[in-house]
Amino acid sequence: MGTTEHDQAFLADWSIHSQFGAVSGTNGVDRQAATVADAEQRRWFAEQLEAHGFSVRRDAIGNLFGLLEIHPGEPYVLTGSHMDSQPTAGRFDGAYGVMASAHACFRLARELREHPERAKFNLAVVDWFNEEGSRFKPSMMGSSVFTGKLALEEALATRDRAGVTVSEALGAIDELGDFTGLDVVSYAEIHVQQARSMEEEGVTIGLVSATWAAHKFEFRVLGEQSHSGATALEDRKDALLGAARLVVAARELLDEFAPGDLHTACGEFNVYPNSPVVVASEVSLLIDLRSPSAEVIARAYELLMQAVERICAQDRVRIEIVSEHSWDQNPYQESGVKLAESVADELDLTSARVLTVAGHDSTNMKDQVPSVMLFVPSVNGVSHNLDEFTRDEDLLHGVDVMTEVVRRLAAGALVVEA
Amino acid sequence: MGTTEHDQAFLADWSIHSQFGAVSGTNGVDRQAATVADAEQRRWFAEQLEAHGFSVRRDAIGNLFGLLEIHPGEPYVLTGSHMDSQPTAGRFDGAYGVMASAHACFRLARELREHPERAKFNLAVVDWFNEEGSRFKPSMMGSSVFTGKLALEEALATRDRAGVTVSEALGAIDELGDFTGLDVVSYAEIHVQQARSMEEEGVTIGLVSATWAAHKFEFRVLGEQSHSGATALEDRKDALLGAARLVVAARELLDEFAPGDLHTACGEFNVYPNSPVVVASEVSLLIDLRSPSAEVIARAYELLMQAVERICAQDRVRIEIVSEHSWDQNPYQESGVKLAESVADELDLTSARVLTVAGHDSTNMKDQVPSVMLFVPSVNGVSHNLDEFTRDEDLLHGVDVMTEVVRRLAAGALVVEA
Repeated sequence: MGTTEHDQAFLADWSIHSQFGAVSGTNGVDRQAATVADAEQRRWFAEQLEAHGFSVRRDAIGNLFGLLEIHPGEPYVLTGSHMDSQPTAGRFDGAYGVMASAHACFRLARELREHPERAKFNLAVVDWFNEEGSRFKPSMMGSSVFTGKLALEEALATRDRAGVTVSEALGAIDELGDFTGLDVVSYAEIHVQQARSMEEEGVTIGLVSATWAAHKFEFRVLGEQSHSGATALEDRKDALLGAARLVVAARELLDEFAPGDLHTACGEFNVYPNSPVVVASEVSLLIDLRSPSAEVIARAYELLMQAVERICAQDRVRIEIVSEHSWDQNPYQESGVKLAESVADELDLTSARVLTVAGHDSTNMKDQVPSVMLFVPSVNGVSHNLDEFTRDEDLLHGVDVMTEVVRRLAAGALVVEA
Repeated sequence: MGTTEHDQAFLADWSIHSQFGAVSGTNGVDRQAATVADAEQRRWFAEQLEAHGFSVRRDAIGNLFGLLEIHPGEPYVLTGSHMDSQPTAGRFDGAYGVMASAHACFRLARELREHPERAKFNLAVVDWFNEEGSRFKPSMMGSSVFTGKLALEEALATRDRAGVTVSEALGAIDELGDFTGLDVVSYAEIHVQQARSMEEEGVTIGLVSATWAAHKFEFRVLGEQSHSGATALEDRKDALLGAARLVVAARELLDEFAPGDLHTACGEFNVYPNSPVVVASEVSLLIDLRSPSAEVIARAYELLMQAVERICAQDRVRIEIVSEHSWDQNPYQESGVKLAESVADELDLTSARVLTVAGHDSTNMKDQVPSVMLFVPSVNGVSHNLDEFTRDEDLLHGVDVMTEVVRRLAAGALVVEA
């Protein structure tokens, strides 16, 4: 393991890469979008791209591209992921995908300079801006703007909790550019699995065949401010109590379905005025429903709405749906899954089809061009946590598979001629 | 109503007073401790004190005193309350008490300049710093330091959520002084009732005879950060879910007791990392139990601890008690209650004994010197809310009673000679 020159080069860069935004005393990082840590990593990464002969470009939403033109005028095979992280998160999530993509392209660059005839298309590596959405909502911001799913102006005007806009934050770290018009024919991304099935089943390469269906809500619970010590029960309209019941109700939904058929969660929960002796007048919270099955989502939706009604009556609060969006189980191109499978076979690595519960930038890209999405295992499936861990061996297998996948894409795989 | 010169003067000042920190489009204020609004009001108030011949002094925790020396060397009758507010709160809470105390003293000042023999003691008005505790914890900070219950250094080092210390905040508004050694013989305070009993029973003057018993907790719920979409139920240690169950459990405690025997509340609830797709690793929350009966508190405590154990087992979280403090039902001096009752009788105003659920600065002062605590009614008992309201008529009756109470205290009432 790690004995080839390629492997050593990857592990050396990976080790440097993991130091940007490192949380001291842990193995994890805190590198939210457009923070100083993100900026430092981007500058280092841009230098690596240039050192390998790639031209660095930034677009108007801060996506960072490294371009290798082999055949002037031809379109590009794009590969990458995101280097931003959640607060106090693992060092693998996103970052591994960018580095694996970059090293796959670095290997191919050497080869294609000698044998340009082996590729039909050019190569591009990308670090998508703000995939995590922890500082600026929504998540997958960079790839959503790139694919036209989110308006640039809207994205740039989004504010973090301190009131700083995306535009200001990217301007402050000098990562706003004006690159446009990248002609992409196909896309590949690799990520650590954020679940344990591959590790448990001894699978090295996950062939992502579809995303789970999901329904995401932002709720606002409205009560009335009053003295939390003095106010009698019958006079209280306690938004915090109503919101707490909603969190519990989302958990209790799981009991209505077979184990694993539904995931529900609340990750963000903001209380106003959030003061020691004041009954809260307002709580905003996010609740997500996820399932491989659209039917399960529909039934869970119905049950959640019943809980909302019950809570409003019981606690004399109002509950509004501020926004909601949903999607069905959403497949990746079958041709891409098969391509990745044959690469894994050729490299003698075990592979299996898996679904992704989490969204990825490839979720946006696959709606535009044929896309391959791969996973490597994560120990115990730990994710969005400082202790997230994937073995070097698996990281290196992933880079090998990516290299071969991108090689085939560059040679024209998955692209149907007009 | 409001036809005497005194009444007009009070209502005129009251109207100006309510404009500091006014929340536009409402009748309420947002005037947290040591904010710009608090600073502006303090400056205006200091000018009023000086215009009426009082010397203004500030102590090392920002308590603002107006002193009227009638008999040099004699101790002081102190009267006042606090001008800071909760975020988006009513204009009466605290502020009315300061203005009623000031106007009582202004009336007496005129009289005592002509007839100094009518008073034995000097007069002092106080605006206690940070009674609310919304920006800096704990509440009743100024009177706690004044009475030696809280160390000055500890109070000055307390930080708000933005990391600003009390010392920095008071320094920035130039409200830190070095006044010490005020010799106080007795204390009087008036406040709007933060419940509806007086309004419902047609009582104009509440004679506060005791505070409710209370037990206050800061809990920390500890889980583990993970991807809130991808992580399977059995792998989650969701601090937000555990904390939500604790809020619901605190509400459900009420069902175990007779109506009104117990109040429970959670006003503050902070989630980490509080990000859209992350299972929370930590939630800090405050839970208060309050009752007129120490036995009820003890039983509620026991039931709450059972809930804590149940939640830890059920949701695989840890729950720590970060801090807790409690007090029994705590009486005001009976002699003070009787004094206020006789004043109300003399003025032909209805009065009744009431308990206070909320704490007041007088809760600190009564442990040092004989103290009188009075209430006037509040419409519907609304408190810590922009819509808090007390009729002018009741405000003016309160000032009349305070004037006579302070007059008697200045003449030596409640003070037993050595």
